[in-house]
Amino acid sequence: MSTGLILPKRGFTPQEFEQRVARAQTIMHRHGFDALLLTAPPNIRYFTGFDSQFWESPTRPWFVVVPLEGAPIAVIPEIGAPEMALTWMTDIRTWPAPVPHDDGLSLLRSTIGALPRRFGRIGAEMGREMSLRMPVSEFLSLRDTLGSSIEDGSPCIWEIRMVKTAAEIDHIHYICQIASDAYEALPSQISIGENEREAVRKLRIDIARRGADSTPFMPAISGPGGVPQIVCGPHDRTLEQGDILFIDTGSTFDGYFCDFDRNYAIGTVADEARRVHEALWLATEAGIAAAVPGATTDDVWRAMSAIIEEAGAIGNNVGRLGHGLGLQLTEPPSHRLGDGTVIVENMVLTIEPGMEYAPGKMIVHEENIAVTADGARLLTKRAPRELPVIR
Amino acid sequence: MSTGLILPKRGFTPQEFEQRVARAQTIMHRHGFDALLLTAPPNIRYFTGFDSQFWESPTRPWFVVVPLEGAPIAVIPEIGAPEMALTWMTDIRTWPAPVPHDDGLSLLRSTIGALPRRFGRIGAEMGREMSLRMPVSEFLSLRDTLGSSIEDGSPCIWEIRMVKTAAEIDHIHYICQIASDAYEALPSQISIGENEREAVRKLRIDIARRGADSTPFMPAISGPGGVPQIVCGPHDRTLEQGDILFIDTGSTFDGYFCDFDRNYAIGTVADEARRVHEALWLATEAGIAAAVPGATTDDVWRAMSAIIEEAGAIGNNVGRLGHGLGLQLTEPPSHRLGDGTVIVENMVLTIEPGMEYAPGKMIVHEENIAVTADGARLLTKRAPRELPVIR
Repeated sequence: MSTGLILPKRGFTPQEFEQRVARAQTIMHRHGFDALLLTAPPNIRYFTGFDSQFWESPTRPWFVVVPLEGAPIAVIPEIGAPEMALTWMTDIRTWPAPVPHDDGLSLLRSTIGALPRRFGRIGAEMGREMSLRMPVSEFLSLRDTLGSSIEDGSPCIWEIRMVKTAAEIDHIHYICQIASDAYEALPSQISIGENEREAVRKLRIDIARRGADSTPFMPAISGPGGVPQIVCGPHDRTLEQGDILFIDTGSTFDGYFCDFDRNYAIGTVADEARRVHEALWLATEAGIAAAVPGATTDDVWRAMSAIIEEAGAIGNNVGRLGHGLGLQLTEPPSHRLGDGTVIVENMVLTIEPGMEYAPGKMIVHEENIAVTADGARLLTKRAPRELPVIR
Repeated sequence: MSTGLILPKRGFTPQEFEQRVARAQTIMHRHGFDALLLTAPPNIRYFTGFDSQFWESPTRPWFVVVPLEGAPIAVIPEIGAPEMALTWMTDIRTWPAPVPHDDGLSLLRSTIGALPRRFGRIGAEMGREMSLRMPVSEFLSLRDTLGSSIEDGSPCIWEIRMVKTAAEIDHIHYICQIASDAYEALPSQISIGENEREAVRKLRIDIARRGADSTPFMPAISGPGGVPQIVCGPHDRTLEQGDILFIDTGSTFDGYFCDFDRNYAIGTVADEARRVHEALWLATEAGIAAAVPGATTDDVWRAMSAIIEEAGAIGNNVGRLGHGLGLQLTEPPSHRLGDGTVIVENMVLTIEPGMEYAPGKMIVHEENIAVTADGARLLTKRAPRELPVIR
């Protein structure tokens, strides 16, 4: 099923990881951390390249320590050692997990304890849009006995991950193109009278066939002229004349997500829904145009918001009009008033205007872009201006 | 693609949720908790039935409070309210997330603060095989200002979830049967010369076609006579004569996982691998036979371990020989020496003997069972005693 797409090489070169670490260490220096302590899959993958679906098992904690100087250290269960050894990592320390009375904690403590102390502070995943993948009680016990203080490293980690490398952007572009093609083909695969669940199953299978590795996120919902929410479903509801079918997907290639939606008219939809769809298409154009280096996320929000308000929005329960993405479906920053993040080259962002125009009738558009010196570069294939029709 | 399987009704009745809560409250009483504070998707789903893939977005925390008496309370972002309203939950409190300076924390604090105080203790997901899905710094701030003490509720929560209801077991049985059928059909779908990645893609698509909702876990690896690890892959490695191909899957139906593997001979494999495969098949029989009410997880481990040792195991980096499963791929208990969990009716467990018989050559078997008064009931279709062959 060739689309003329160039398949990016899986994984990244050791040179790329060295550059990621060097840049991270510069940022860590500014934040005053002797090391970052990482437990969450996307943070571990960012620095090591380690790929596993074994994160689904909550039994064993895994740790990676990024010191202020030198290479990262993996402190992991034995079960993961053979695969970690295939990455660029050379310092891999293991214990025979699960061991309830000491699941890696003493090994982690001695690993961090042996690092040079310059600031006396270790950054951990304690803050916004992060959670720690280890028992909190064990984290607190580590914190109380470490010697160095453990503080919130999330702003530092997000500063590192928020700006992507060229190879990361290639990965995101590839999965965006796969999902774009599958979305485009969907009207030929489903018909009025099928239900939301069947539509999702077909799209999910098509995206897998086209080369995606996984589809962790595919909410879908339908309703007359719009939908009440955009983060859950599918349900058993049958697609009916006059509906709008909303489908969103976060599918992945080699660890990297796309995150964008598409809307379909089931047969014909009311003029009012078409009018709102057109306004959101224009709001997307405005958001894309506003996402230039030097602008803030507030500016991007304002560019879209002006058009949405003008179109008669009565609400929006999403709380923002887009966000970052990469190794996770959503990442900082957020396009919202007060976010204040300055947009820089090589950020990857969603542009996601949405509005409720009548009670329970919401329409939301979404595209993914990479920021270049010259402005936004579209990673998705732009949604058609006219609603595609499913008959 | 009918297999004669009966599709379980999606979701659970309000009566079932009432019974879950009543049983939980009895257990909470014994543990001395005025309430459980839940943030993790499987815990929230267990008590509310709320289904979403939106957990992929780390931006907004979600909370459910299970009080010692009365119905659970959802404290969630507005974006989730329309869907939560479709569940049996009636007390749903929302805030317009994301709001970085107070993302639900004051609403959560007042919700917990208004509950009757009997023990002065709130149980949170602080311990083994759990992680808190909210920023730790916000959790610590809540803990410091709540009035009641927040303590490790994990043993209490696992005691609740470790014993399944009949409807939960029906769900797990269904996904086990789907995956069993797909595993059985795999040799007709792939051939020598294809690679691991292609095998996984085909199996993933087939499992989706047969009715699974998602496949978050499908590690696959191949190697001459055995494999070096069982939790990562697929890689680009081509399947070659003499290999064993190992594939494991955690696929889901309506939120519930199966978790079992299958092994395939690529062409023919060496006699030594066949001998070890036979020993593991017998070890699985012994594990299944040992999993009776009143036995301990140590007993189940011993039953398998005796056969594995006899067969000449030189190691096993997995650290245990099986575990619980349900809303998560792996749950307590663990079949390992010292675990000491007494097996009771309606636990759902994997029986997972594995061994490394030569350096880098590991073979692992796995089945899923439900424990009945009369002993184990197989939820998977038993793996064939002879290695199925891919030609």
